[in-house]
Amino acid sequence: MVAEPTPLTYKDAGVDIDQVTHALRSVGKMCASTHKDPRVLTGIGSFGALFRADFAGLREPVLVSSTDGVGTKLLVARRMGRYDTVGADLVNHCVNDILVMGAQPLFFLDYLAAGHFGPGMVEDVVKGFADACREQGVALIGGETAEMPLLYGRDDFDIAGFIVGIVDRGDILGADRVRAQDVMLGLPSSGLHTNGYSLAQKVFFEQAGLGVDERLPGMDRTLGEALLAVHHCYLPELRELLKEPALHALVHITGGGFTDNIPRVLPEGVGAVVDRDSWKVPPLFAEIARRGPVQRAEMDRTFNMGVGMVLVVARDAAAEMQRALVARGCRPFVLGHLEAGPRRVRYTGRGEL
Amino acid sequence: MVAEPTPLTYKDAGVDIDQVTHALRSVGKMCASTHKDPRVLTGIGSFGALFRADFAGLREPVLVSSTDGVGTKLLVARRMGRYDTVGADLVNHCVNDILVMGAQPLFFLDYLAAGHFGPGMVEDVVKGFADACREQGVALIGGETAEMPLLYGRDDFDIAGFIVGIVDRGDILGADRVRAQDVMLGLPSSGLHTNGYSLAQKVFFEQAGLGVDERLPGMDRTLGEALLAVHHCYLPELRELLKEPALHALVHITGGGFTDNIPRVLPEGVGAVVDRDSWKVPPLFAEIARRGPVQRAEMDRTFNMGVGMVLVVARDAAAEMQRALVARGCRPFVLGHLEAGPRRVRYTGRGEL
Repeated sequence: MVAEPTPLTYKDAGVDIDQVTHALRSVGKMCASTHKDPRVLTGIGSFGALFRADFAGLREPVLVSSTDGVGTKLLVARRMGRYDTVGADLVNHCVNDILVMGAQPLFFLDYLAAGHFGPGMVEDVVKGFADACREQGVALIGGETAEMPLLYGRDDFDIAGFIVGIVDRGDILGADRVRAQDVMLGLPSSGLHTNGYSLAQKVFFEQAGLGVDERLPGMDRTLGEALLAVHHCYLPELRELLKEPALHALVHITGGGFTDNIPRVLPEGVGAVVDRDSWKVPPLFAEIARRGPVQRAEMDRTFNMGVGMVLVVARDAAAEMQRALVARGCRPFVLGHLEAGPRRVRYTGRGEL
Repeated sequence: MVAEPTPLTYKDAGVDIDQVTHALRSVGKMCASTHKDPRVLTGIGSFGALFRADFAGLREPVLVSSTDGVGTKLLVARRMGRYDTVGADLVNHCVNDILVMGAQPLFFLDYLAAGHFGPGMVEDVVKGFADACREQGVALIGGETAEMPLLYGRDDFDIAGFIVGIVDRGDILGADRVRAQDVMLGLPSSGLHTNGYSLAQKVFFEQAGLGVDERLPGMDRTLGEALLAVHHCYLPELRELLKEPALHALVHITGGGFTDNIPRVLPEGVGAVVDRDSWKVPPLFAEIARRGPVQRAEMDRTFNMGVGMVLVVARDAAAEMQRALVARGCRPFVLGHLEAGPRRVRYTGRGEL
C-alpha cells in the first residue's frame, strides 16, 4: 500500500495569508483614524482606494505625487527591535517631498514586504504610518503587505510609500521663481533623516564595532536612538508660509545632500554658495566624518549635515521670513546665498567638524 | 610617520550614486515617451511629479489609487536573467486593480530597490514599466531607485508600483450594484499573473528540481517562459464596456484566488457559485496541483486557475455582454452565478485537472 503524499499548501511555501489578513484587520482601525477628510470615500479592503477630486477654491489644481523608501535605516530599526517609527519616517519624507513644490498632502499608500512577519510587526509598522498620517492630516487609504520568504531573508523587510497632494498651479514653488540675488535659510534636521545610513552603519557598526547602546561624545542619547530619530516633517511649520511671495523655493535635503539637491531649484546661470561656518554640524555627523574618515565634500553629498530643509527667499524679505519661522517654533539660520554662475553648489568657510 | 587612513566614501558602503544617476538619465527618454497626456506637467527629476487635476466632463470625479508588488515572480525573472517584463506585470496588475472600480488610469510611479544593480538592470526594469505605461496610456511620472547592499542580498531586488486613476462617482462599479440574480463571466488569464509564485516555485524548482528550460506536458513553451508570461491587462478590452448598466462589478483574481476576491464585490446576503467544469484549467495550474500535490480548495484560494478577471453582470444581459466581449477579442465564458446566501464562494462541478 502506497502512502498518499501529504498535500502541499500555500502556507508550506512560507506564505501565511491568514496571519497577514488577521494583522491587516487589526490595523484597520488605525487606518480609519486617518480618514477625517470627507473626500475619503473608502477604507482599506476594496481593490482601489477612493478620494473625491474636489478641489474647490483652487483655480488650477495640480496633483503632486511622490514615492520613496527609507533605505537602510530599516536595519537600525531591526537592530533596535523597534518597528513603530519607520512608518513615520516614510510619511514625513514623502510629505516633505511634495511640500517643497508648495503642495498640501491628501493621501498616502504604503507597501510593506518581508521574508517573514514576526508577531506584531505588521501592526507596528502600520502604526508608524497611521500615527504620522494622522499628525499631518494625510489619509492612509491603501497599501500592500507581502510576505515573500523566497525573495527576502527571514528577517529582511522593506517599505515604500506613495503620496498624492494638491497645489494651485500659480503657487508651485521652484526654479522659475528663484533669482541670483536670493538668500538661503536652513532649518535643522532631527538626525540623518532617511539618507546615508549605509555609510553611517559601515562606520559605526562594521568598522568601529559599536553597539546601539553606545553613547558618543556630545550626544544626549544612545547611538541607536540618535540613528533612529524620526525624519522631521516641516509641514506644520511651513504650511502657512507657502503662499508668501518672498518664498521662491524649498529644498528637501535628501540623498545627495546639499550638493545634489540645491541645484534642483536653481535656474540656468544661478549657483548657490553654502557657508559651512553658518551652523554647527551636530555631533552625529561629525563622528561619522572623524571615524570614517569621510572627507567633507563626501559628507556634503551624502548627509543632510544637520540641515533638513532649505528655503530660498528674496533677500529683502529674509529677515522677516526668519521672524515668521521663529514664531512657528523653527530655528532658522542664513545658510548661504545664491549668485550668478554655474548651476551648482560652491562651499565657503572652514567648516570644522 | 603614521599613514593617513584612506578616506571612506559612500561608494565604499556599496552605494554608487553616479551609476544610478547615469542609469536614470538613460531611462529618461523612455519615461518621457509615456507623457502624452497634456495634463502631465513635468518629467522625472523634481521632488514631486505634477499632473493637472482637470477632469472636465466628469460630474463628480473620484481619484482611485492602488499599490502593489509582483511578489516572487521576480525570482523567475532572475532565474531567467530577464528583467524587462516584470515592470509590465506590475503596471498591468495596478491598471486592473483600479479598472475593477470602473476607473481609467492616469499616472504611475515605481519603486525599485536592490542589493546591487547589475549592468543594464535599472534600464531593463524601467523599460518594462515604460512599455506597459505607453501601451495602456498611463503616464510614468515618478519613481524611486535605491541600491541597498545591506538590506538586500547582492542579487535580490524588489519592485512596487503606485497608480492613480479617475472615475465618475456615479460610474463606480462594485457590491452596491450586485444582485443575487447576476451571473459571472470569466476572462482567461495569461498565466499565474502575479500570484502564487512562492508555491509554484516550491513545487517546480525546489521539490521537482526542474529547470526553466523544461517543457511540461501540454505546454507550448518552456516552464520559465510560461511562468514569466506577462500579467494580462484587461483595460483595452473592457474600457468601452465600463459604463454598460448591465455590468455590475469586476473582480481582479489576484492573491486569494476566487475564494478571497469574489466576496469583495458581494453585498451581504449574496453568495457566488463557481462551476469548476465551466472552463478548462490550463496545464500549468494542473501540473502544480498534480506535482504538489495541492488540493483543489487550496489551488482555488492561491491561483487564478486560468481566469484573471470576472465580470458580474445582469442575467438578462449576459449573452449580449458575451457578444460584446467576443467582438473586442476576448474569450468570455459563464463561470457561474450568484445566489441568495452567505457572502462567500461555493464551488460546484467535478473540476478535474
